[in-house]
Parts: sequence; C-alpha cells; structure tokens
Amino acid sequence: MIDFLKKVKKSKNDLLLLNNAEKNNILEEIAKSLIKNSEDIIKANAKDMANADTNDLSLALKDRLLLNEERIKGMSEAINQISALPDPTNRVLDGFTNNIGLEIHKVSVPIGVIGVIYESRPNVTSDVACLCLKSGNACILKGGKEARFSNEAIIEVIKKTLKQNNINENIISLVPDYSRESVAKLIKMDKFVDLIIPRGGEKLIKYINDNSSVPVIKHDKGLCHVYIDKYADFEKAINISINAKTQRVGVCNALESLLVHQDIAKEILPKLEKAFNEKKTLLKGCEKTRAIIDIDLANDEDFHTEYLDNILSIKVVKNTDEAISHIGAYGSGHSDSIISENINNINKFLSLVDSACVYANASTRFTDGSVFELGAEVGISTSKLHARGPMGINDLTTYKFKIYGNGQIRE
Amino acid sequence: MIDFLKKVKKSKNDLLLLNNAEKNNILEEIAKSLIKNSEDIIKANAKDMANADTNDLSLALKDRLLLNEERIKGMSEAINQISALPDPTNRVLDGFTNNIGLEIHKVSVPIGVIGVIYESRPNVTSDVACLCLKSGNACILKGGKEARFSNEAIIEVIKKTLKQNNINENIISLVPDYSRESVAKLIKMDKFVDLIIPRGGEKLIKYINDNSSVPVIKHDKGLCHVYIDKYADFEKAINISINAKTQRVGVCNALESLLVHQDIAKEILPKLEKAFNEKKTLLKGCEKTRAIIDIDLANDEDFHTEYLDNILSIKVVKNTDEAISHIGAYGSGHSDSIISENINNINKFLSLVDSACVYANASTRFTDGSVFELGAEVGISTSKLHARGPMGINDLTTYKFKIYGNGQIRE
Repeated sequence: MIDFLKKVKKSKNDLLLLNNAEKNNILEEIAKSLIKNSEDIIKANAKDMANADTNDLSLALKDRLLLNEERIKGMSEAINQISALPDPTNRVLDGFTNNIGLEIHKVSVPIGVIGVIYESRPNVTSDVACLCLKSGNACILKGGKEARFSNEAIIEVIKKTLKQNNINENIISLVPDYSRESVAKLIKMDKFVDLIIPRGGEKLIKYINDNSSVPVIKHDKGLCHVYIDKYADFEKAINISINAKTQRVGVCNALESLLVHQDIAKEILPKLEKAFNEKKTLLKGCEKTRAIIDIDLANDEDFHTEYLDNILSIKVVKNTDEAISHIGAYGSGHSDSIISENINNINKFLSLVDSACVYANASTRFTDGSVFELGAEVGISTSKLHARGPMGINDLTTYKFKIYGNGQIRE
Repeated sequence: MIDFLKKVKKSKNDLLLLNNAEKNNILEEIAKSLIKNSEDIIKANAKDMANADTNDLSLALKDRLLLNEERIKGMSEAINQISALPDPTNRVLDGFTNNIGLEIHKVSVPIGVIGVIYESRPNVTSDVACLCLKSGNACILKGGKEARFSNEAIIEVIKKTLKQNNINENIISLVPDYSRESVAKLIKMDKFVDLIIPRGGEKLIKYINDNSSVPVIKHDKGLCHVYIDKYADFEKAINISINAKTQRVGVCNALESLLVHQDIAKEILPKLEKAFNEKKTLLKGCEKTRAIIDIDLANDEDFHTEYLDNILSIKVVKNTDEAISHIGAYGSGHSDSIISENINNINKFLSLVDSACVYANASTRFTDGSVFELGAEVGISTSKLHARGPMGINDLTTYKFKIYGNGQIRE
C-alpha cells in the first residue's frame, strides 16, 4: 500500500504542471475512449451483473450497477461537461500589496491526493476521476466489490488514454485490492492522502470518520424534514410534502419525517393522508398524529431512520421551536424545509436549523449541484467544514498564500 | 463530560440570536472587567508561577506564563480590537434566483461548538474565547495544567460578565478537568463538538489527529526553509536568512533549515557562516556543506527537527527541484522561501512547494494574521482543508444555503 501511495503522491506534481487546455484535452480524449471501448466495458459489466444474480442483489441495486451503450454515452457526456467548466485552480481569491511592498496573493490550488470511497454505480468512477483531474488532484478510488469488473474496465480505458497522452497514469488509481483492510489502511495514510470522501452507508461512514487520521468530508445519509407551520398555505404544504417524499424515494434529499404544527394538525392531516394514499406511501405517526388519522405507530427509531423507501414518519409538534429542536436531535444536517407564510417563523427556522440546505416553501428535492449551478457534483457534504451541501469542483481546491518580496525582513 | 457538552451545545442557539452590536457590547464589557479584576487574576497567576518554580519550568516558559498589569491591559486591548472587526457571520457569500424562482443564498454561519486545546500563555484563553464569541461559536477551552489558576480566573471574570449581561454563560467554558482522559473523551464527541483546534507540541497534535472523530485543524510545528537559488542576490539571501533564523528563535515561522544551490555554495557559505557567527547561531551542515565551512554534522534527524532555538541546519542541493523535493519530505507545510532573481525558478518553487505560505525574496517571519491583514488570529493552520496559514475570524465560520421558495416542487 505504501509503495502504491508514494507513486500516487509523486504524480501530483505532474498534474500541477498541466494548464487548463492540456487538462481539457485529456478529458475530451477520455470521453472519446469510453465510447470507443464501450463493448469491453459492457462485457466487464456483464460479469458484475452475473455475480449480482448469484448474490441475489436487489432489483434497485442491479439497476444502479447496469451499464449499456446509453449509460456509457451519459458518462462520456458528463466528462465533456466537466471539461467545459472553468479551471478552479490558480484563481487569485484575494490579494494586496502591503505597506512594506510585500505582494500577498491568496491563490486556489488543488487539495493534493483525494481518496474517494463509494458503492455500486460505476459511472461514479469516471465522474470522480475526471472531477479530480480537472481540479488538479490525484485520486485514489475505492469502489464497491459488486462493481469491481466494471470499475477496472473503466479505469483501464482512462489509464490507457493518459499514457497515450504522456500523462503520468498514477494520477488516477484504483486501490490495489478490495479487502476491508485496504480501507482501514488507506484512512491512516495522512502522510500521503490529503482528504477522504466517503459516500455510502451510515456504518461505513461512521467507521471511516471514527478511525481516519486523514481529514474526512462525509457524504452521509439525508434524514430530511418538512415542517408544516401553523401559518402554512395548505396547497403548498401538501404539494411539497408529496413531491419531497414520492418524486424519487431512494435519494438522499427525499423527505423522511414530516412535522406538523398542532394547531392545524386536525385540519391538514386527513388531507395529507388522502394525498399520500394516492401515492401508496406507508404512513407512520406519533400518538398525537394517530389520534387524528388511523395509521401505524412511529417509534423513536422511525424518527432516526432514513427509509429510502415509500415510507413517511409524521410527528405533531407544539411550535416552530419544537420543530427546530426535533430536527437538531434527529436530522442529519442535509436538507430541511419549513412551509409557512409567516416571515418570523421562516427566519427563525432558516437561522436555527443547522443543516447544509434550509428551505422555505420549497421541496427538499432541490438539493443538488445542478440546481445550485455548481456543475457536476462530487456529492452532498453533510460535514460542516470546508464544503457543505452540494460539493462542486471548486470545493476540490484549497488555497495557498504566495508572497512576492524584494528582500523584506521583519523588524 | 456528556452533560457538560449538552449544555454547551444547547447554548449555541442563544449565540445565533445575538446581533453584532450585542456581541460587541459584551466584548467591550469583558475587556473592561479584565482590567477591573486584574488584581484577582494576578493573584491566581502567582499560584501558577509558584508551581512553575516548584516544577522547575524553563525561563522561557515562565515568561510565557507570567501575567502583570501591562499584559492584562494587552489582553483587554486585544478584545477591543476583536470587537472592532466586522461580524463574519450572516454575510451573503453568493446568491442568485434560478429559472424557477428559487432564491438561493449562500450565507456565512458560525461553525457551532469549537474545542481549542493549547498550552502555557494565559492570554490565549481570552483571545480565543472572544474570537469565538465574535464569530458566534460556543467554545470549550482546554489550557495547560501549568496555567490552570490563571485560566480559571480569566474565565471566571468572563462568565461573570456574561451573566451580568443575561447571556448564557455556557457559551464559553473550560473543560471540567485537566486530566489527559478529558482530551481523549472530548475528541470523540462529534455529536457535540464541530471542530477541534490543537495548538502545541508535535506529539499532542499527532495524538489528537490520529484519534479524533471530530474534524481537526492542526496548528502544528513550523519547520520552515529558506532556499538560496543559484540566481540569488547574495545580500538579500544573507539578510533574509539571518532575519528568518535569529529575529526571534522560538516561533513557528522562524527558519530551521537552509538549502543552498551547489553552484554558489563555495562563495556564499563562508559569508553566511560569518554572519551567523555574529548572531552566535550554532550551524550544522550536510557533508557537502562541511567540505566548504567547518561546522558540526547535520544528520537526517536534524533536517526533521524544529529547533525553536538558535540552531540552523544547512544542506547543499543540486537545483530548485531538489530543494522542492527536500521541502516536500522534511517540511511541515508552514512557510518556505526562495531567494532568487530568476522568475522561472521562483514560479516553480511557489507552485510546487506545498506549504500554506510560500515566499519569494522575503523572510518567513512574515507569516501571521496582522501582516496578512486578517486581524487577530486563532493560530497558523498547517492543515490543508477549510483554513490554511494564518487563521482569522472568517475562518471560524462555515456556510449554509438558505433557499426561499414559493411552493416550488421538483418535476
């Protein structure tokens, strides 16, 4: 592992010497190569699909895993979009000349070596590799075992293209093996790795966060809330709740827990029940909810659960303060929304709910890089430092101070 | 510990509700109270000083520990300067209305609860407490045992002032005890603490970094280099080397290792030796250096050592590339300087040396918050994420996205 990491770390200076045109040229070559080699990639994917059958993976997981001509075309297009973004590095973020003539420039630079740990979808492999290349970072990818052959085929195409363009192929690497131990080792290698981005299950992320000596930006679960305030417009409240929960249930910005102000619960809960029944959503509620509509009981564990399914927990709360403190205790800092026409309650909610994205009168489903005009995203950060919420290419940079003097010494 | 942390976490929302004028008012009251209670603080400090005698602390450490009227006045003035800074929170960093009318605002917000672990100088206690208050963060302070009575006296004055102004006193707290275990516990409390800032010895920082599940921004050692290029102006090279090494030897931005291009080594090393002899600097060199000037041998360990003393290691290098790779292997990512009149070598050095502050033709001693016009500083970050180099009050904030809708749902 150390020999492997030494090579990767060494490669990052080669990346620093490439200008934007050179990086874009390679990205476009990679986009073409993926199309050209789609047959090989699909063959490799078939092996993963066969294993998925043997291992009885769920239909949803198999769908995420599958690659075909159209999906490879999508991967290729995503790379061309990344190539079209402005170079996030070498931007002068701030700068001035001080009173003794020191020119102090704060300049954006790549972070260095980034390890990304993720699951299933093989398109993440090419997306992340190319986002890192564009932002000048060497990357170490650790995909899921279930996508092993697909990922290896994609990386082989990318590495071949790098070689053909005389670029150090170590700038984009898969971890040498798929054992759990390789993750355990990787996250202790702060001498060689500057950042770990884990995307995936709660347990994996907790394990990495608790054990990593490399800084971590978590892409953790989304336990998102909608709070329907006493002063809510009912039509907006119902539309937004339905949309946030049911438009796509398996995603991190989908609604999981609905909070309803007690003064309007009697009136709005039956309407909500009717609307959710049409979407076949399984509703679970607290005792106060069940005193109004006849649904299953939601226990404490329910309110801690990211269902990623067509299930919703409902809780009646006394006021905005209780909604805020419930979200503080049960939320995951991802996306939460208040439905209200009252500016004071909106301001309070938006200030005090400590989440990456806080909404007033809109669906939580909007949390993503394209809506926020950040371009392709690495994921949605639920960490609070460095990058929060949709994490775009700029968030893959840090800065350094370059100071130009003319012999100045400190008196 | 958990009860203590729950109280601190709860207090952070009280802070969010204070506006800038209210925060400044409290800061000014604290500044006054420190002066008013200086007698009590000095009495408490005398206990620490007596223990320092018993424990045979070095003169330098005792000097850092000592408080007197003048130093307390300095602490008070520092707080008034913090109060005069613009509020770093609630700034709209970016924002736009998208094509379906969602108003997306990226707004600076406090990080939340910050734990700061530091040593000796009791003025750090009031500085950090007030920087956190100004930036809306609750803070947990863990000072050194050697400054225990001084820190407790300072915090008592601050807490009394908070109470008198009806502010939740838990926003500024000392850890309940001085055991090593309390640090071990604190750094595992990611449910309650959002950031740990360790300032101090290398071992302490490594321990915290390796074991913390809370994100860490290290304020680690400064193993700073000056590289004298083949194309250096000798007068600048000698002045800067002398200044960076000897103007103040016990600080993190002082020079520790001097690198000299082989083509000029014969000419410049005797001049450097003469200049450093006048400053009584103990010189140690690699074999190539010792073939030119008669000094002690610097072994591999020397090049890894932050002396914090009037000692300098010297190495002769082949070229700028070797200087860069030496700094990559031995440096601490703090501050490094090239002395050269050649723009290509300067650009290469400034691009490829991966340190927070990279200088051309200036002393490394300039790395601090006041020179960089950041105001009072929390320290010098040697981490690469979130904040790098001198860390001012803006770096104690993160951001959230506030999204204002009017019923928008995702199609």
